[in-house]
Formats: sequence, C-alpha cells, structure tokens
Amino acid sequence: MEKISIVKIGGNIIDQPDQLHQFGVLFSHLPGKKLLVHGGGKIATEIGEKLGIASRYHNGRRITDRATLDLVTMVYGGLINKKLVDLMQSTGVNAIGLTGADAHLMPAVKRPVTETDYGFVGDMQAGEINVPLLQLLFGNDLVPVLAPLTYDGAGNMLNTNADTVANNTAIALSSFFNVHLYYCFDKKGVLLDRNDPDSILPEVNNATLATLKERKILTDGILPKLDNAMNACENGVKAVYLGAADGLLQHDNPVVGTKIVFA
Amino acid sequence: MEKISIVKIGGNIIDQPDQLHQFGVLFSHLPGKKLLVHGGGKIATEIGEKLGIASRYHNGRRITDRATLDLVTMVYGGLINKKLVDLMQSTGVNAIGLTGADAHLMPAVKRPVTETDYGFVGDMQAGEINVPLLQLLFGNDLVPVLAPLTYDGAGNMLNTNADTVANNTAIALSSFFNVHLYYCFDKKGVLLDRNDPDSILPEVNNATLATLKERKILTDGILPKLDNAMNACENGVKAVYLGAADGLLQHDNPVVGTKIVFA
Repeated sequence: MEKISIVKIGGNIIDQPDQLHQFGVLFSHLPGKKLLVHGGGKIATEIGEKLGIASRYHNGRRITDRATLDLVTMVYGGLINKKLVDLMQSTGVNAIGLTGADAHLMPAVKRPVTETDYGFVGDMQAGEINVPLLQLLFGNDLVPVLAPLTYDGAGNMLNTNADTVANNTAIALSSFFNVHLYYCFDKKGVLLDRNDPDSILPEVNNATLATLKERKILTDGILPKLDNAMNACENGVKAVYLGAADGLLQHDNPVVGTKIVFA
Repeated sequence: MEKISIVKIGGNIIDQPDQLHQFGVLFSHLPGKKLLVHGGGKIATEIGEKLGIASRYHNGRRITDRATLDLVTMVYGGLINKKLVDLMQSTGVNAIGLTGADAHLMPAVKRPVTETDYGFVGDMQAGEINVPLLQLLFGNDLVPVLAPLTYDGAGNMLNTNADTVANNTAIALSSFFNVHLYYCFDKKGVLLDRNDPDSILPEVNNATLATLKERKILTDGILPKLDNAMNACENGVKAVYLGAADGLLQHDNPVVGTKIVFA
C-alpha cells in the first residue's frame, strides 16, 4: 500500500511564528501523500477573553457552549486553518482547509449529557469519515488541512479534540494506505523523567505503557496522547510517533521521538 | 452547455436567522449545479468592535489592516462560511466551504497603494480562478460555498468584495457552463424610485444604465452592483439578476427582480 503521512500539530507550533514557519518548510519537504490536522492553541482563549467568553474545562476538555462554539468555529475553522493553508501554499503545497461539515467530511454525535454537560462537543467515529472525499483530494494532489471541528448534520458544528481527529482519520485511511501518524508536541518524545528533556523513550509498547501508568511516571497531558496513539496502532495504523515536529519531519522514515508499538 | 446557478448573498440574509433559514430551504430547491458566494454582514464589524478593531472605509470599501485581515479571515472564512455550510448540509446540499487560498482557488494581487492604501485587499481576475478545481467539485456533486477572501500565494490572505468574487467566478465558468448569476440584496430589484419598493425595473440594459447614471436616479449602493452585473453580462455570463432572494430563487427560471442585459 502507498504510504501516507498524517501530522498533528498543536499550540506550541501554531502560537509561535518562528516555529510555525519552520514547520511549514519541514512539512513541504515531507514526500508523498500527506494530511495535516491542527489544534487550537491559545489564540481561541485569548480572543475569547477579549469577547467576554470565558474558557471552561472539565478533565482538560473545553466545555463548549453556544458562544464558545462560535468562537472555535471562527478561530479554528477560519483564522488558524486559513493561516496554515496560506503557509502551505506559500511553500508549494496545494493545501485545502476543511472542517467536518465541509463535504460531509466528519459527521459526529453531540456528546450525551452525563454528570458533565460538555455542550457542543462531537464524538466521532473513524468509520463515519468521508474517505472517498479524502481519496478524491489525494488523487488530485491536494493536501487536506483539517480543523478540529466535526458536525451533527442538523446545522450545528461540533468541537472535537484535534488528537481525536488525527487518530480517527489515520484509522479511517489505514484500510487504503500505509499510514504513518505523527503527533507533534512540545517535547522531543515521551520522557521517562519529566525534568530531563533528553530522557526520551525510543519506543512505547503496551507493556511499557501499562508500567508507565502503574508507576505514575507520566504527566497528565501525555496520557491521552499515548492512549490515542496506542488506539491508532491497534486499529491498523502502521506507525505512530510522538515528538517534536523538527525531529519527526526531518527524515523520510523518522527515528527521532517516541515510536508507539502495539505488541 | 449545462446550466449553473451562482448566487451571491450578503448581510441582509446572513445577519437574520429567519431569512437565512428561509434562504437555505430555497437554495436547496434550486435544481442543477450551483455555487454560493457570501459577503460578511455586520458580524465582522460587531466582533471587530468587541476586539477593539475599528472598521474604516474608503468609498464604501473596508480598509484592511493586519488586525482587520485576521478579523475577516475568522469571521468570513470561519464563522459565516461554516454556518452556511452547516445550513446547506442540513438541507441535503453537499456544500464545501472555501476561501481563495484553499486549493489555490482564487489567487489575487494586493491592491497597489495610490492616494489610498486599502491594505490587504485583493484584486482578482476571472482568468486566474482555479476552474479545474471547481469542475472537480461539481463533477462530484459538491456545492462550493465561497468566502470573499482571496490570497497572494506568499502566505497572506486578502480581502475581496463578495460581489467581485461572484462576478469573476461567473465569468470564469461561462466558457464551460450556461451561467445564471443572482445577486441577492435587500430590495426586490433595481428601483426607479428609491422610496417606492414596488418600482422595480424588470430589465436594465446598457442604455438604461447610462440614463439612470446620468439622471442620478440610483442610490450609491446599487451602482457598483449594476456595474458588476453588466460586466458579467459583457463577459459571457448568460443571465444576471438583481433582487430579493425569495423572488430570485423561487423559480427554475426566475422572472422576479431585475434582469441585466448587455445590449
């Protein structure tokens, strides 16, 4: 099967013009078919504050009321998505920015209210992704840039975690491509010692992950990323890496960062 | 040649939920290939005010400094574009929202500074529009929803008047389609007497337009619309109409509103 690279970037790159520009150049040199998923960064929070929309979180997930939904639709779907498309185009990458509503790409279900009401948050499934559309775009040398927004098909956008979008997209494409999934974040990889930036684990498999969890070695932020990554491996994604963008993207077959292995 | 309908809507529809919903239903019933171009409405101004970005105009055109560019990218490219895509999808129309940067759809040139510096305003040409992309989308039963944003190919979005986007898109497609272009606005058509909403001119041709201009019968807002419309007729667009959305879209071959004729 043909290789495809799916890259997820977050605030640490999006929020810093230098990092973003450097990423744009690296991404443009990534050979073959590719797709970018982006998060939101601090920009939504900053603009929200100016607009008088308070950010509220539960277990690290933003609670999305109607005003926040409009905010993230503007900032993720407009400002950040188009900034990235502009950047890609300026490096010769024929990017096309999309949300889940565009061309029925990522339908989702509004998260049911339990003890917490997350508001307009979308729970998506890999099997629901419009893969024929992505194949149409790939077949025409277009590079999709996906905002972390899904939709309910009844007129509402929904807010979905960008790692989740990357994970599901990778799984959906794994029946047709040899998918390499890169989660870029602000560390060089999964660290054994959070205070030592060079204590990178070259590989994490199921047994390692269980041990790391048991011993509570990992910081909170990395755990959902690792679970997402392991879930992708478990569901057909050929290779999953976590690390800094400059390491992950500088080789055709990256060896920098942490490789996640389902075994 | 196959017929295609290009519809342009502005603030009078976008800003009013009832009108917008009604428009969505009408647009969904428009048969055959179609494309929507939207303007910005008052939302950009309102959000800009909250963010401390003052709206400045020269001859009715917004002056686009860097902060305003970010604002319109968010609001036009994100909030309004996705609201429309969501609405279309909820009526069964497989809409895909795009700006000029997406898939290199509408490249433009930053307007040269003369006595006025319009800032990040894009001057576009019909011949530069990525028509093969639009044909790819039409061929896959997708309905493009275009935000009034072009781009310079060097990393900058540019702000372009929505009537101009509609005009150029219509001209670009006129070599391949029998293009019907509908400019929807807050009047039933071009009025002979601005104080009488029923004084609709059924048709405006070159001679009529010259006379109307000479006698200064027209209000300021309608003149650029008429010039745009006449320009479209002159450049291959088969039929151009100006009027209220509910009139224009309720017939397969609309007779409500003002028909513009190059003769």
